Amino acid sequence: MTSPIRKKRVSLDKVRRYLEPGPVVLVSSAWEGQRNIMTMGWHTVMAFSPSLVGCMISAGNHSFEMVRRSRECVINLPTFELTDQVIGIGNTSGATIDKFDHFGLSAGTSEEVAAPLVNECYANFECRLVDDSLVDRYGFFVWEVVNAKAEPSPEYPETLHYTGDGVFIVAGKVIDRREQFLPQML
Amino acid sequence: MTSPIRKKRVSLDKVRRYLEPGPVVLVSSAWEGQRNIMTMGWHTVMAFSPSLVGCMISAGNHSFEMVRRSRECVINLPTFELTDQVIGIGNTSGATIDKFDHFGLSAGTSEEVAAPLVNECYANFECRLVDDSLVDRYGFFVWEVVNAKAEPSPEYPETLHYTGDGVFIVAGKVIDRREQFLPQML
Repeated sequence: MTSPIRKKRVSLDKVRRYLEPGPVVLVSSAWEGQRNIMTMGWHTVMAFSPSLVGCMISAGNHSFEMVRRSRECVINLPTFELTDQVIGIGNTSGATIDKFDHFGLSAGTSEEVAAPLVNECYANFECRLVDDSLVDRYGFFVWEVVNAKAEPSPEYPETLHYTGDGVFIVAGKVIDRREQFLPQML
Repeated sequence: MTSPIRKKRVSLDKVRRYLEPGPVVLVSSAWEGQRNIMTMGWHTVMAFSPSLVGCMISAGNHSFEMVRRSRECVINLPTFELTDQVIGIGNTSGATIDKFDHFGLSAGTSEEVAAPLVNECYANFECRLVDDSLVDRYGFFVWEVVNAKAEPSPEYPETLHYTGDGVFIVAGKVIDRREQFLPQML
């Protein structure tokens, strides 16, 4: 578990460092006195600056109307030690339980949005909805990350990457190939 | 390196198994007698059936006009052993070299699209453009996968996951938590 006190601010153009590898994330939201968390694996970085992230949230999720109406969410990055919570959150509905309480997670106060963040996650990305033009057709939301914080260590956390069928791949060895890149491509 | 002979057809609704974990991919395309390959890390699964994948290709890439005009591409999944080629392809432009020849990769014939596939990759997903409404604004293309093939083994390949700054995370241990899922969530 991580401590909210240790987290450091992340430059918004560096959000790709955490999300581009494709981890499962937890999306937290609030609307009309309710709060919720959902597990989400369908997302992509879309721009460095402004810091844009696109994600899929289908209308069948309890979070769908909450994020659509509040136009805010927090994308939280869990690590391997939160595997049970990630699975539990993905297999329950916020229509019947408060997932923070049920899974023993604490809701932190965000700085730029009203949606709560998940303290126990390695990183928290506070988001505002900037484009809902593909929401009706696909459930595709385009978010601008407006505040970002992450644990300072480990430098590369053991994130979870979902393949379907209950199987996750855990982030493994880190390979630094910086010397093979053109400077302008880094 | 993989052999085109060994690859088996993948059910189109199972494409998420390969792309949802967030690997770097190689996008191959063809247009007016030219062919090209680009390295791409910004993509997301968008639907099971039809099998939809969204990806970002910025206008600065030589491949941009090729995929926009041909409305086709192949998304190829490289593994750890192709790291040098993945980096090289990402650091060169198809405006000046033929990347298949330059990086010693062989172009395979796709079954459903005119774009060539990269034989040496673990999997090949032939795609047709189904939605270009966010291309001008973001460079976001929505593809339908119309044919998919993958190596039968290893079951979970060592894919590359890019963090920026020349650093990749390699897919590590596989954890099967199937028994923790509700049947309808698998």
